[in-house]
Amino acid sequence: MEERTEIASLGEFGLIDHLTQNNEIKNASTILSVGDDAAVIDHFGRQTVISTDLLLEGIHFDLSYTPLKHLGYKSVVVNLSDIYAMNATPTQIVISIGISNKFSVEALDEFYEGVYAACKAYDVDLVGGDTTTSQRGFVISITAIGEVAPDSYVTRSGAKVNDLICVSGDLGGAFLGLTILERERKIFEETGAQPDLENQAYIVGRLLKPEARKDVIEYFAAQNIMPTSMMDISDGLSSELLHICKQSNVGCVLYEDKLPLNEDSKAFAYKLELDPTACALSGGEDYELLFTVAQADYEKINANNGLSIIGYITEKSEGENLITRGGNKHQLVAQGWNHLK
Amino acid sequence: MEERTEIASLGEFGLIDHLTQNNEIKNASTILSVGDDAAVIDHFGRQTVISTDLLLEGIHFDLSYTPLKHLGYKSVVVNLSDIYAMNATPTQIVISIGISNKFSVEALDEFYEGVYAACKAYDVDLVGGDTTTSQRGFVISITAIGEVAPDSYVTRSGAKVNDLICVSGDLGGAFLGLTILERERKIFEETGAQPDLENQAYIVGRLLKPEARKDVIEYFAAQNIMPTSMMDISDGLSSELLHICKQSNVGCVLYEDKLPLNEDSKAFAYKLELDPTACALSGGEDYELLFTVAQADYEKINANNGLSIIGYITEKSEGENLITRGGNKHQLVAQGWNHLK
Repeated sequence: MEERTEIASLGEFGLIDHLTQNNEIKNASTILSVGDDAAVIDHFGRQTVISTDLLLEGIHFDLSYTPLKHLGYKSVVVNLSDIYAMNATPTQIVISIGISNKFSVEALDEFYEGVYAACKAYDVDLVGGDTTTSQRGFVISITAIGEVAPDSYVTRSGAKVNDLICVSGDLGGAFLGLTILERERKIFEETGAQPDLENQAYIVGRLLKPEARKDVIEYFAAQNIMPTSMMDISDGLSSELLHICKQSNVGCVLYEDKLPLNEDSKAFAYKLELDPTACALSGGEDYELLFTVAQADYEKINANNGLSIIGYITEKSEGENLITRGGNKHQLVAQGWNHLK
Repeated sequence: MEERTEIASLGEFGLIDHLTQNNEIKNASTILSVGDDAAVIDHFGRQTVISTDLLLEGIHFDLSYTPLKHLGYKSVVVNLSDIYAMNATPTQIVISIGISNKFSVEALDEFYEGVYAACKAYDVDLVGGDTTTSQRGFVISITAIGEVAPDSYVTRSGAKVNDLICVSGDLGGAFLGLTILERERKIFEETGAQPDLENQAYIVGRLLKPEARKDVIEYFAAQNIMPTSMMDISDGLSSELLHICKQSNVGCVLYEDKLPLNEDSKAFAYKLELDPTACALSGGEDYELLFTVAQADYEKINANNGLSIIGYITEKSEGENLITRGGNKHQLVAQGWNHLK
């Protein structure tokens, strides 16, 4: 039988001790970590970058098909992704959780295994947090701190006319992964049939265990590339690109045939009679980086197989447009995941 | 009739724009604020302090007697209190909220009125956050960032034998405020009688609108006092002092007759047949500062009417003791608010 330790048997402080006992510090900037009113960080003349995310059970994740370890990993990664999207390096996180008594200490350990795995993969220190009980549902709040050389952060507002629009990795996979998991959950609920996900490892992995594009930021540094604007794709490419256009006061042209699609994603989309382009434009949670660079950087971007040039920036008056494979021009619209609609 | 704007009518980004439209920046260290993947902060050679709190409806607050504006104010203040407890100055906050559709835009505006009022009162900038829907209950997560001159932060682990144990303000008031509000809520539910809180403004205010002790930190700086250890009192004096003793590896002697009690608190405690000393020792949420100083600082502490010397630090082997008014010695035990028990 699986072991089950009640959280109440440890108490709040016992639980915090338990969850942080193997916490290792990797950054010299971490002066004081878990166990006081606050953590202390010294970025030695670099600027501090801060980002926060709130994740709620039933809204952002479904525990019926999300392993807790994956959830812990992903919760950290989505926050680090925001720091990378500033062209910065994440260094510390604080994590708060609200848990109902349906959770055992073993379940929390699984979640924290994922949290620590992400901290290790991205060289980030867990330096604090808050642990409380919740009446219902699992609540996760993570704040990430990062550092950047003075004034070398990249915002959403710097895109210039004629800049190239670029994206890392491939798009739409996480949305397709969600689609299959939701479908299998319904089948299981209605018929009891166990899900068959064997051939869908790629798209399911894109949803459940995304990675933040640390490598892209490192490539920029190594190649001396300074993007003019950047953000990570959490709500879908269209929605994010429209943010950049709005905040940079520019327009854009996007080419359908340049959108990077994975073969497994494409095959599965066709199987479900979904348009892979629509998945790439509107599917969220890919956590790839969307950025613009000056045309002078064309060769450097092109030399990296993991980066795609998908369009260019225009005058604002030209609007935001998608050129289809057939050569037609459509207005780009945001149909991303709007949690409040 | 009261106006009610549905949150869905604004959408997520519309809501964020609405809530942050009057956001003012006060700190030179705030390089980039709300509206990007992350905020950028430059502390110009000072160390960064970070603290986070998660507040859940039904666990940390009861909307039946907590005005939303007060809740917004308090949510910020409790977090700033942690920064002051490090002997640091808060400079920025990020705030995430999860809201169910029972909330209108007007209700959120009230909450943010309180948030901005606290930012103004403490010269703190709101620089980011996350806004999401929740299936049930109001979720608030706040992370505060502060700054401190290199290595002048104060932890819980530096108390030395013979140090004086000190506390700011008075204790037990917030607990008594909670007691009366809970009682009046039950009376209202059972009989419909409206609460009569007129004579309890002080204790109700202690619970609903606490202040963080910025003034104490400023006094330390002006008087050149460097506490040897410090924390804020959120869970009750006994519980917090035991933390300091454990982390500093020392014991303590506390004098019952030195505990600072407000006259209104005392009167109300007697009315309810509660022991005011027990309220002071175990009542939480006062957000006063508990700290230790070297004996050399006795005059400086004594000169400030808002500070009380309540005991002294001993060898660990002597344990943690309370000397009662009658001269008896009792072991100090933590009976603070343990949300997980």
